[in-house]
Amino acid sequence: MDERTRRFLELRRVAHLATADASGAPHVVPICFVLVDDSLYVSIDEKPKRSSAMGLRRVRNIEENPQVAVVADVYDDDDWARLGFVLVRGRARVLTGGAEHRRAVDALREKYAQYRAMALEDRPVIAIAIERVTSWGQLDA
Amino acid sequence: MDERTRRFLELRRVAHLATADASGAPHVVPICFVLVDDSLYVSIDEKPKRSSAMGLRRVRNIEENPQVAVVADVYDDDDWARLGFVLVRGRARVLTGGAEHRRAVDALREKYAQYRAMALEDRPVIAIAIERVTSWGQLDA
Repeated sequence: MDERTRRFLELRRVAHLATADASGAPHVVPICFVLVDDSLYVSIDEKPKRSSAMGLRRVRNIEENPQVAVVADVYDDDDWARLGFVLVRGRARVLTGGAEHRRAVDALREKYAQYRAMALEDRPVIAIAIERVTSWGQLDA
Repeated sequence: MDERTRRFLELRRVAHLATADASGAPHVVPICFVLVDDSLYVSIDEKPKRSSAMGLRRVRNIEENPQVAVVADVYDDDDWARLGFVLVRGRARVLTGGAEHRRAVDALREKYAQYRAMALEDRPVIAIAIERVTSWGQLDA
């Protein structure tokens, strides 16, 4: 990943995570994320309505099918010449503890002040090993 | 779809479209879209780098696997109590002409002034028949 692409990803506050179940039915949600080396990390910070975090569709999909895609983009309704996005494709795992989980939680709290007051250490983290990066449009925003 | 959900979708200027190929590998891109009755429409307004619009990954995926998901959301970095999203799942087709294509182009131009100067009538439109709608968080933005 070149420096411009890395910087574009680092500056984005929100991205979108696409997963698919075993039948190939896609799912997509907005995410907060952090880039560390060649991985993206996403906390499962929500209290799921039913049973456990593992009940969330994105987590069930990753257990069934680890292929995921994340897009981070800039949209400007007044100037379409400013649009740009970076699309990352890779493989996801769900971390529930350990050294990588701790590093991810630290990096998420460094980027998002909101996470400093949340018990992320007790919540799963999605780790995405980046395999392909593509980009489109203006990346200098 | 209830009125609040419909209004939330109508007010969003950008959303994110997830598709998956036959192997279940997801893909996701930002989209401009319009809601008409129980369908979402997305123009393939870009000039693809290679050959034809049909060469775009999202279009190839839909030909292989018509299951898609679209999420429209509000992100507010200063107040996470304001976050909200609507997730639509459905089946997509690629329209290259005909009455539904014309209605979609008219609706896209009504919503986006930028499209009025673009030759959308010559470009394919993705039509998504909405099958399921779920929502999360604050939808009054």
